[in-house]
Amino acid sequence: MSLRRFLVEPQALAAGEVALPAEEAAHARKVLRLAPGAEVELIDGQGRRAQGVLTRLDKSGGAVMVEAVEAAAPPSPRLVLCPGLLKAPAMDLLAVKLTELAVDQVRPVLTRRAVPKADGGKAKLERWQRLAGQALKQCGAARAPEILPPASLAEVLAAAPPEAAKLLLYEDEGRTSLSQVLPGLNGAAEVWALIGPEGGFTPEEAAQAVAAGFVSCRLPHTILRAETASLALAGVIRFAL
Amino acid sequence: MSLRRFLVEPQALAAGEVALPAEEAAHARKVLRLAPGAEVELIDGQGRRAQGVLTRLDKSGGAVMVEAVEAAAPPSPRLVLCPGLLKAPAMDLLAVKLTELAVDQVRPVLTRRAVPKADGGKAKLERWQRLAGQALKQCGAARAPEILPPASLAEVLAAAPPEAAKLLLYEDEGRTSLSQVLPGLNGAAEVWALIGPEGGFTPEEAAQAVAAGFVSCRLPHTILRAETASLALAGVIRFAL
Repeated sequence: MSLRRFLVEPQALAAGEVALPAEEAAHARKVLRLAPGAEVELIDGQGRRAQGVLTRLDKSGGAVMVEAVEAAAPPSPRLVLCPGLLKAPAMDLLAVKLTELAVDQVRPVLTRRAVPKADGGKAKLERWQRLAGQALKQCGAARAPEILPPASLAEVLAAAPPEAAKLLLYEDEGRTSLSQVLPGLNGAAEVWALIGPEGGFTPEEAAQAVAAGFVSCRLPHTILRAETASLALAGVIRFAL
Repeated sequence: MSLRRFLVEPQALAAGEVALPAEEAAHARKVLRLAPGAEVELIDGQGRRAQGVLTRLDKSGGAVMVEAVEAAAPPSPRLVLCPGLLKAPAMDLLAVKLTELAVDQVRPVLTRRAVPKADGGKAKLERWQRLAGQALKQCGAARAPEILPPASLAEVLAAAPPEAAKLLLYEDEGRTSLSQVLPGLNGAAEVWALIGPEGGFTPEEAAQAVAAGFVSCRLPHTILRAETASLALAGVIRFAL
């Protein structure tokens, strides 16, 4: 059985006594029924991890004695995924699965055909970040993606650095498939990928992205739900380059 | 708005009047509130599709007049995915997403570390097939994977044809990553892939698969849930070759 894993604040993870956040301490005590002396693993969601021994666990919180902190090298290329904003269950699935797939940053995009509005912004963002944190503890990956609030397509296009490799998954792309574009991504330090919402990008949106340097391509053979396209693309970039 | 899509029996899809299965007819009438004259799309889950006009829809069933049936070419390579049997929510997710990802056949494998037992076999199999059918109607893909009942590792290894390319995703594989194995799959007509259950394959199981011609490799950078590994691998084989 692997060690029980807890998520601590990024600033908190250093050699010495590390405080367990209140929620994590309550979970350790009430659900996992751990006691001082238990060996545990701590992660900070930003690539640092440590093993340690629980030294205190009571109603007021908990603490873990850590000897050494290990830093995981970030995966390459850095991967920024920009999915069209989807309905809540699909965005929830993305928050979890894109964490496992070691996506570095998620930037939901507001598009013409997106069904949901960007309301409840702060609460939704906190929900996605909480789900990503839970996924991190379950899957044992070293870092959670940074999830940004939904932004307009123009804002996202402007944020992509000139030197990044840029992909647009566009279902009306007639010529180029993803497999043709992939070899050009080998060696890229950073990849940005735009994926449409359930109804796809409009031709105007696709043209706007292409004008900003995004290479339009499509996934052949099948018609994917928008969230599946995001997962498949993240898998391809993480594991096929 | 795209055409309403209905799933009919494979044998039923031909030019002329095609009967709507009772469940599909009831859905068309009570939920979608369609009436004779409506244009609809029919798929048979085995690669055939047709557009037609609803000619009859009442309590006893429905019928669609079809002019021409179109056959979608199967994607290449043929992809047979053999995931270790997972708990119900994960298997449900796989039934849906592997349909979208145009996997041809799913063969759940009974492994030493698999949590669930292969009980409730027939009911579970029917549930996965129903979910795959629903996914097909939603995503508009042409065919659903054939989902077989769970079988032992030995049975699955024996079923893989000698000429198929064979992959084993093994988390304790120390040397070879998936990206190193991929170039060797280009041009393969058929790919079989074994993916472990939540706890992974035992070393004995991995050795057994390697002895049967499966090439052991791993997904670097991160630690995936078993179902995410299946989705990522299907995406890589469908879109990166």
